[in-house]
Amino acid sequence: MGPHGDGDIEKVESESHRPISTVVFVIAMQAEAQPLVNKFGLTETSDSPLGKGLPWVLYQGLHKDLRIYVVCPGKDAALGIDSVGTVPASLITFASIQALQPDILINAGTCGAFKVKGANIGDVFLVSDVVFHDRRIPIPMFDLYGVGLRQAFSTPNLLKELNLKIGRLSTGDSLDMSTQDESLIISNDATLKDMEGAAVAYVAELLKVPVMYLKAVTDLIDGDKPAAEEFLHNLAVVTSALEETATKVINFIHGKTLSDL
Amino acid sequence: MGPHGDGDIEKVESESHRPISTVVFVIAMQAEAQPLVNKFGLTETSDSPLGKGLPWVLYQGLHKDLRIYVVCPGKDAALGIDSVGTVPASLITFASIQALQPDILINAGTCGAFKVKGANIGDVFLVSDVVFHDRRIPIPMFDLYGVGLRQAFSTPNLLKELNLKIGRLSTGDSLDMSTQDESLIISNDATLKDMEGAAVAYVAELLKVPVMYLKAVTDLIDGDKPAAEEFLHNLAVVTSALEETATKVINFIHGKTLSDL
Repeated sequence: MGPHGDGDIEKVESESHRPISTVVFVIAMQAEAQPLVNKFGLTETSDSPLGKGLPWVLYQGLHKDLRIYVVCPGKDAALGIDSVGTVPASLITFASIQALQPDILINAGTCGAFKVKGANIGDVFLVSDVVFHDRRIPIPMFDLYGVGLRQAFSTPNLLKELNLKIGRLSTGDSLDMSTQDESLIISNDATLKDMEGAAVAYVAELLKVPVMYLKAVTDLIDGDKPAAEEFLHNLAVVTSALEETATKVINFIHGKTLSDL
Repeated sequence: MGPHGDGDIEKVESESHRPISTVVFVIAMQAEAQPLVNKFGLTETSDSPLGKGLPWVLYQGLHKDLRIYVVCPGKDAALGIDSVGTVPASLITFASIQALQPDILINAGTCGAFKVKGANIGDVFLVSDVVFHDRRIPIPMFDLYGVGLRQAFSTPNLLKELNLKIGRLSTGDSLDMSTQDESLIISNDATLKDMEGAAVAYVAELLKVPVMYLKAVTDLIDGDKPAAEEFLHNLAVVTSALEETATKVINFIHGKTLSDL
């Protein structure tokens, strides 16, 4: 009962030969989204097509003839902080795809990274593929399901043109890293660590929408500073770097088809 | 920007004074759902209102004049196993609430439990409240967000009538339990451990639908057997116990208002 019937393949193939018209950025934190919203002069929708009474924030605008949306999970109603992590990210990805029918999703945000894998603070990585590091289910097949390895949409021309670093992203719902998380991240050979990517990948695959990832490094996992402290210290500068790369990506995407990427 | 405006409170209050007409069971595994589906003679919907091309499985039927749905995330397309865990559970909860507008949700399934907290294999617990144990975010407010403590809908009459055990449920995406998971489960004083409950709670709160939880114990966390082995060994017997209690709950709910529960 796989969802990938022949009709879907035909649909993707025909769509890959017309210019991309709609891009949805899925971004967990307001601070990560704001520079991009400002750069493209996006406006917050007052009557969101994603649903009423939800904390979710949707920005929209046009860049030439390319429709750009930025969707964020918004503030937690009780605590007033951004609703980070896999559950809100999966919900906004699902609702955005249903309501906005994007040609491609871009999950953009900050991440931790390993300096032994060549990462530096402020680097913006393109992600090759994603896994989870906090879903350990030691039953055959369930173990692979837990890891949830999924390829990002392949964009070889974009990678070359923008001269980005590339690496595997590992996702979990904690900002810190337990011993068990660390051993799974290392055994999965991941370069980057975030809190949403692999969940966005799951939903994108479920609904058959191509997805790419831009992840900007705020903290070095194998550095000497605590993740939370380093994350907060570097957040503003790094989100600015993320906006610069996202802008280059939008300019590259404009006028191209999926297969041009 | 909290979603709980005065209008919502009025809505819940007026709805709590008419008989419950629609119940949605959110169940992660087919093996957990099947006894209940059989018991109430539910039929699988061929043209699911939850969306096309998705692996999700929706069963429906009537018990007297009470409409009963059971929704499951279905099989992973690539691996053929049930799509367990917080991300699929949150998606089916979201889509079910939007499409079916239930008066109350029941997240039913199996769980691990602590024998030092009075649990035995085969017990079916009513859940008092839920937390997460694998979302460690050591930044003020984000730490509380990660724990995600939420009350179950209060059902004191049902609890007394059915003479159920009651306890706090802790959710994480692993079947096993790392040292760090364990210390959080213990410091949160949880009796039960599952892989979906607190995510269902998050979505139910977001969409303002009352939710209760029935969790049947397949493995003792502080017992001497590995969780995966004990889980698989006890699954069939325990899902039968779960069906018996769910049937009693349905019979108790029938004809009652939310405030009667």
